Parts: sequence; structure tokens; C-alpha cells
Amino acid sequence: MRAVVITKHGDPSVLKVVDVEKPEPKSSEILVKIRATSLNRADLMQRMGLYPDPFPGDHDIPGLEFAGTVVSCGESVKTLRVGDPVMGIVSGGAYAEFLVAPEMQAMAVPKNIDLANAAAIPEVFITAWDALICQANLQAGQWALVHAGASGVGTAAIQICKALGAYVVVTCSAGKRDACLALGADLAIDYKTQDFVEVTLQATHGKGVTAILDVIGGDYLNRNIAALALKGTIVQVGLMGGGNTAFNIGALMPKRARLIGTVLRPRPLEEKVAVTQRFIAEMLPFFEIGKLRPVIDRRFGLDQIVEAHEYMESNANTGKIVIDVY
Amino acid sequence: MRAVVITKHGDPSVLKVVDVEKPEPKSSEILVKIRATSLNRADLMQRMGLYPDPFPGDHDIPGLEFAGTVVSCGESVKTLRVGDPVMGIVSGGAYAEFLVAPEMQAMAVPKNIDLANAAAIPEVFITAWDALICQANLQAGQWALVHAGASGVGTAAIQICKALGAYVVVTCSAGKRDACLALGADLAIDYKTQDFVEVTLQATHGKGVTAILDVIGGDYLNRNIAALALKGTIVQVGLMGGGNTAFNIGALMPKRARLIGTVLRPRPLEEKVAVTQRFIAEMLPFFEIGKLRPVIDRRFGLDQIVEAHEYMESNANTGKIVIDVY
Repeated sequence: MRAVVITKHGDPSVLKVVDVEKPEPKSSEILVKIRATSLNRADLMQRMGLYPDPFPGDHDIPGLEFAGTVVSCGESVKTLRVGDPVMGIVSGGAYAEFLVAPEMQAMAVPKNIDLANAAAIPEVFITAWDALICQANLQAGQWALVHAGASGVGTAAIQICKALGAYVVVTCSAGKRDACLALGADLAIDYKTQDFVEVTLQATHGKGVTAILDVIGGDYLNRNIAALALKGTIVQVGLMGGGNTAFNIGALMPKRARLIGTVLRPRPLEEKVAVTQRFIAEMLPFFEIGKLRPVIDRRFGLDQIVEAHEYMESNANTGKIVIDVY
Repeated sequence: MRAVVITKHGDPSVLKVVDVEKPEPKSSEILVKIRATSLNRADLMQRMGLYPDPFPGDHDIPGLEFAGTVVSCGESVKTLRVGDPVMGIVSGGAYAEFLVAPEMQAMAVPKNIDLANAAAIPEVFITAWDALICQANLQAGQWALVHAGASGVGTAAIQICKALGAYVVVTCSAGKRDACLALGADLAIDYKTQDFVEVTLQATHGKGVTAILDVIGGDYLNRNIAALALKGTIVQVGLMGGGNTAFNIGALMPKRARLIGTVLRPRPLEEKVAVTQRFIAEMLPFFEIGKLRPVIDRRFGLDQIVEAHEYMESNANTGKIVIDVY
């Protein structure tokens, strides 16, 4: 089969499409013929050698999510059959024509979602929902602040907040404000010219937000705490602004605030299964009724993987960058 | 009645014993004749003007906990009667002969605890239990790291960990190691000559601790994260080492760690009642069976309040510094 491999660590040109052996499903796994995969920031980090596959296989094939069709099942697979359209998260290997995945990590593609678009769902919707709802415990009527609102995770987070009856403020670049508002954001802050602390406190009548989904880090940390409500939670899912910062721990205490670091990919199988199964139960119905939908900025072919990575690095996208495998 | 007031902000000499009017209980309050109160670090901060009473009254009387006898009850008080021995946390006012407190914030003094010693229980046991058990969710068989193990909060935390079947490592000065071990600590680390990260990782076979109770802050933060297990929690209850530090947010993410700031005193009444009532149900039985006991370093009279503050500032104590009011 054809797959993208990282030939060495470096810029996008290190990605090459090569022929590798098709994987074989173990007893509890399915073999999926991939229709599409999509890009995540973690793929760029992996390519640069900064975020290695926590469960490395024979080949260094990136790709953390897939949508495709089941083409064979291990002997103990019970809930899926050949021909089923599925999507899901994996810890790597999705930039390829075929992929094996544990049965319980695969989700049925919602009926009204095109298989080629379903590849834009798993990572960002699970990440945003796990962070805001499962970890920060955001409730209807409360406010969330989502940084990089036009990113894949941001566009998912906006929709999840609105589907669940929460309010959401986002930060983004000026040119992406309208897209965020169109997705349902209650406020979209131009991060270059507006102070998100000031705008957020004003919007919440001085109370601050209950939950912050942050992919930036760096000097946003102290400002995030300033924008936070009493007993609020910051969930750190990325560090596009860097990890090191001058921090005032003291600011956390009077707010009784929580700062949680999180990652999806290195979680053990049982936790990935648990989060997937809960997502199926709680979030997939919102796709069926049209309250949640994948937001796709642009599509590339597998042969255009270098251009696709370059495009993500330009930060021009609003929503997901999808790779059509066939 | 006689009470200690903060005449101005400054060193211990600003504390004066003066005559003030005896308070009157409102309908849901009790009037307590105080047998003893005890010192907390927050009192020193309040005296220096760094931690004002969040609910200021007519007089700036410090004192966050009390043990004494009910001498009158507001008309809606149902569970307490004149003559009952009680103890509890308050947001100020306990350096005095009498105090009013909400009925539901008072706890019956355990039968086997002397009233004069009960004043050493509420703040430190509630703080340590709320942090380690309620917030960090420490379970039997797991490891905790408690900084300043010989402090009031530290000596309470050691006993709570052992009573609930958890393991506990403490840091303290060399001269206090034996006292911590005698209270049940599994390991006592001399903070000046030993690296707590190294010792803790060794003790936990590289896994790290599930919960950290930290009153130090400052440059302990990054080291705390290094000593933490996957999905572990740091609860920041004090900042004796300062609040500002160079922080690597990135270290939180692969560990999926949580950093929680907490304070007891500014919590609203309903939360103080809730924590008190849960403490009564879950922790008071351990005092009754002798698994938990107040640890008292030294006692002073109300007239010796200046010496008592000076003594706490010298960091010589192991356990609580109690003020006998009569």
C-alpha cells in the first residue's frame, strides 16, 4: 500500500509517499481502507522530531485520525462488519491507504456526514469536548474562552459550546473573526489588537469564564488566569506560544483555579476506548441532528502531503486540512 | 470582652489586647465562649496587611479557628445547645474571649479530645483533607508528597494519609524528620540536603506521587511536576517560597497533571458549611478512634500573642501553636 513516511526530521520536504506492507488486523482490530485523513499540529511536531509516536511501529507513518471503510475484521470483532463506514483516532499511521485500529476505537460515521468529511471530526471534536466538557466541566449557561478559535480544535469547540448551551468567546486573527461568529461564537476577539482579558471580563460582567481551552501557552498563562472565573479551569492542549513563561502561582489561589495539562495521543488504549465510547454516546447524536459538523478549510491529495503541511504552517486555515487518500 | 486587634500593619508588636464589645449571635448563629484558638500562617499575613479579612467586621480581630463552649444560641439554631463543646473554622475573630459563628460551621468536639487541644484541629485538618482527599482525590495505596511536613498542615496531612491507607513522603528541616516519621510519614526528606524529586521517584519506583500538598510555591513548582505521577495533582495551599517563578507549562501536558490553587477562608458560607459537614461525617470518626490527633507544639496565653507570632515566624514549631484564652 502507499503511505507517507517521515524520512528524517525536518521541514515538510522530508515527507515522502512510499510503498509499505499493508498491516494485518489482530483479533480485536479492524482493517480500514482509508478514504481520508486530516492534519493535526502534532503531525508537524512529529515531523520535526519533537513529538515522537508514543507507540512506534515498523514505519514512522504520521496521521492521528481516519475515515474509511472496514475491509476485514479480526476474529473477536463483534460490533463492526466489512463495509461499515468508520472514523476514529489512532496514535499514528493514518497517512496511508490502509490502517489497523482497535474495534472499540472506531466510531460509525454519522448518517448525514460524507465519509470524505468524517476524517475532519475525530481529533478536534474529541479534544475540544474532552477538554471543555469532561475535564473543565463546562455547563450550559456558563462561559468558555477558546484561543485560536479558527483552528480545527477551535471550530469544533465553538460548535460544542453552542450545542450544549454554553457561551463562547474566541480569540483569532482579524480575518477569521467572521468565520468564528458564523459558527456560533458569541464574541470573536482579534488577538493582535484587543486584550482578551478585558473583553472577556466585560462580556461576563466581571465574573470571568468557567473554562479556557488554550493551545497557545507562553505568556497567555497569567492572562488566562486573569480572565478566569472563581473555580474556573484552564485546559492546556497545545503550546503554539511556547512552554516557558514567568508565572504568578499566587494568582491561582484566590480564584481557586485549576490548570490542567492534557494530551490525547499517548493515552493508553483503555482510556482512548473510554473517551471514544463516551463521545459516541454524548456527541455523535449532535452530528446526526446537524448541530455539529466538520469544518473543512481545504483538501489535498496524499501526493500533496508536502504542500498540505506547508499550508498548515502558514496558519491560513479556518478549520481542518483534509487529505483525500482516494 | 478581651480580644486581640491589629492596631496597624506590621511586626508582631502591632497586636494588642483590648476591650471590645461582645458580639451577639444572629438567628442561625451561636455565641461561643472560647477556650482556645490557634495560629495560622494567614494570621501573620493578615497582620502584615497582605491578607485582609474577606468579610471584615467592626474590629480587625484575627483568628481563624476556635474551640469553646456554646453560651447562647440564635432562635433558629437546632443542633446545638448551651454548654456544648464545639470547634470550627471562621473567617476571623477567634483571638477573643467570645465569638459568634454560624451553627452549621461548628463541629462537636470529639469525646476523647480535650477542649483546649481541639483548637488545633479545624484549620489544618480541614485544609489538608480538603486538598489531598477532596481536591486531589488521593486514594488508599497511592503516594502523596507533603511539603513542610512538620507544619500544622503537614502534621495533619501525614496522619490523614496514614488513616486512609495512603503512603506519604514529606519534606522538612533535618531536625524535624524524626517527628514526621513518628507521626507516620513513610519518608522524611531533609529539604536542604536532599532532592525531593529524586527521593520521591525512587520511593515510587519511578512512577511519582498522585498528590502533592504544597505550601511553598516558587521554584518548587517545576520540581513538583517532576515528582508527580501521570494524572497527578498539585494543590497549592500556601506560598512561603513566593508566588513568582519561571514555569514550564509543557511539563504538565505529557503527565496530564493538574495544578489547583486553593484557599479556605474566603469561601462563601455555603461552601464552608459543606466542607465542615463532610469533614464531620468523614474525618471526625478518626479522632474518636485515635487515628487522628491534634499535634501541639507550644501554648501561649492571649496576653502572649506577640511572643506567639514571633515564635511562629521563627519556624521552630512542629505542629500547632495554641493560644489559651482562659
